[in-house]
Amino acid sequence: MKKKKAYNVAVVGAKGAVGHEMIRILEERKFPVKEFRLFGSARSAGQTVKFRGENYTIRELKFCKEEFKGIDIILSSPGASISKKFAPFALEAGAVIVDNTSAFRMDPKVPLVVPEINGKEIKKHRGIIANPNCSAIIMLMAVAPLHKKNRVRRLICSTYQSVSGAGAKAMEELKDQTAEYLKQWNVPDSEKKLTKKVFSHQIAFNLFSHNASIEENGYNGEELKMIAESRKILGDSKMRMTTTCIRVPVFRAHSETIYLEFEKKMSVEEARAILGKAPGVKLVDDRKTNYFPMPIEASGKDNVLVGRIREDLSAKNSLALFVAGDQLRKGAALNAVQIAEVLIA
Amino acid sequence: MKKKKAYNVAVVGAKGAVGHEMIRILEERKFPVKEFRLFGSARSAGQTVKFRGENYTIRELKFCKEEFKGIDIILSSPGASISKKFAPFALEAGAVIVDNTSAFRMDPKVPLVVPEINGKEIKKHRGIIANPNCSAIIMLMAVAPLHKKNRVRRLICSTYQSVSGAGAKAMEELKDQTAEYLKQWNVPDSEKKLTKKVFSHQIAFNLFSHNASIEENGYNGEELKMIAESRKILGDSKMRMTTTCIRVPVFRAHSETIYLEFEKKMSVEEARAILGKAPGVKLVDDRKTNYFPMPIEASGKDNVLVGRIREDLSAKNSLALFVAGDQLRKGAALNAVQIAEVLIA
Repeated sequence: MKKKKAYNVAVVGAKGAVGHEMIRILEERKFPVKEFRLFGSARSAGQTVKFRGENYTIRELKFCKEEFKGIDIILSSPGASISKKFAPFALEAGAVIVDNTSAFRMDPKVPLVVPEINGKEIKKHRGIIANPNCSAIIMLMAVAPLHKKNRVRRLICSTYQSVSGAGAKAMEELKDQTAEYLKQWNVPDSEKKLTKKVFSHQIAFNLFSHNASIEENGYNGEELKMIAESRKILGDSKMRMTTTCIRVPVFRAHSETIYLEFEKKMSVEEARAILGKAPGVKLVDDRKTNYFPMPIEASGKDNVLVGRIREDLSAKNSLALFVAGDQLRKGAALNAVQIAEVLIA
Repeated sequence: MKKKKAYNVAVVGAKGAVGHEMIRILEERKFPVKEFRLFGSARSAGQTVKFRGENYTIRELKFCKEEFKGIDIILSSPGASISKKFAPFALEAGAVIVDNTSAFRMDPKVPLVVPEINGKEIKKHRGIIANPNCSAIIMLMAVAPLHKKNRVRRLICSTYQSVSGAGAKAMEELKDQTAEYLKQWNVPDSEKKLTKKVFSHQIAFNLFSHNASIEENGYNGEELKMIAESRKILGDSKMRMTTTCIRVPVFRAHSETIYLEFEKKMSVEEARAILGKAPGVKLVDDRKTNYFPMPIEASGKDNVLVGRIREDLSAKNSLALFVAGDQLRKGAALNAVQIAEVLIA
């Protein structure tokens, strides 16, 4: 991207949970923004959003080149079908898109990037850079530094995913449904009246298999994204992987248990040393005080927390870990802004 | 045990979450109780408990033979140190103890029993039968029927454990702390005042590594119990196992992701057929409607729910599952009463 003092930046999906966070992070990290343009659905059009003390009005996203005229960088998180639809016009207008949806992630011509891991892929872009799935980013922040040193040949991951991954309305649902549940404390569970709008199952004091639809092989969309995207980001199409994605009643940070089988032995001490120096990772691994990663401590933070580093007792050359990372930040908005920072560097 | 029309039964730890459930289940399953004697701590002594419409007063547990005179069966769940202390007196008095604590589980002379799996061990008892760890029972209800058909050589389990495992006070803490959290919705998280009595970490809208203390090898007590007890129950000391135990904000059913590597190939259809017929197991595995085991649906039920049965994409001859089971029932009180039923059969 041509070096400038400041850039014309657009956010598509400005009213969503991730869009909101993108705006906050652009501000926080003092991204050099000249013109700032916000797009949203017809429903959010007309609403205003504060950015650096000024109010910006959200425009309804229209599918034509003129909408993006003069824009250098688009941070987008509207939903995959919308991204597919507006992208050709934005590209025609000369903008570079950092897209947080699944629309382009597996396109071989589109770099899929976690800057700390494969940031050098960014320069190969042809107008679109894809931001990976949140659960994949959070997992790979811990896995990639180890894998770089000693190849991971098998990876098993079980997630504890917060509701923010399903959007701002899902976060409201967890809050409101929990309050409803407590108000009806003395009503038998089967007779409690709980409002379900986003999730088809109760989320208050419950958990369930991720709401993405199930494919032929029994895996849901989220699990398959984690597998395919991780292989692409690590550039290792042969890594053997399985995942189970579970939604838990937590607001905005995902946690994950991870079991890794390496090519050669990797000691706990070595893993701890590597992760202790890895950018974007914070070790939280105090066995004495039973202090390990927790979603409430990852929330609102940039670093992915890693702990419970220990030998996997079930296999040779294997380790087990537990991680927690903010789904909206490193899992989405922060990673996208970091990509934009590399673009203008 | 000598065949009788009805038995003199004692419950030790009658005021605890498990003790309460034991009493309910004895009633529900019409266990032939003649005399009914309840023991508790000094704190709960004097309180009354209803059983079959009659009030029974809890006595303070005293460590002498006379306390257990005439008792045939003791269902006990007071805490391991208390069980160790009262057991010799109860045995001297001629009672048989079904103990839900960890006190005797790994004693080679004590059968460790899940009736559906190794019920035949019960008759080998010398006065004590141990009830296994709740997470182990719930996991094994799904694993054992498959293992019987085709040996499991490697097992990886990540738990999503409800708070009931930490007792009735932990359930109150989840409820009260959640209400506190919602009342302080607009207060920044770091400034919210939340009452912590049972857990040292916030449990409302959070999760954390199990509160059992961490051993030399980095595993916590709960994880090591799951491994050691599973091997004993399955009679397979060589099964390679690892687990990660995580506490989640759910009231009373534990969920678990389980990855199994078999000696030979086991198809999804075969596993489903085996589990569909396994006693104490209910298949909840509807891919089309995304309907799988959930803790709220396992709560208050006898069966362990099993679903998400699919190939583990990361290894040959492997399957992945997701289970949910009531921690207080099959994970504890129900299993203990089932053992007592075998004793008198």
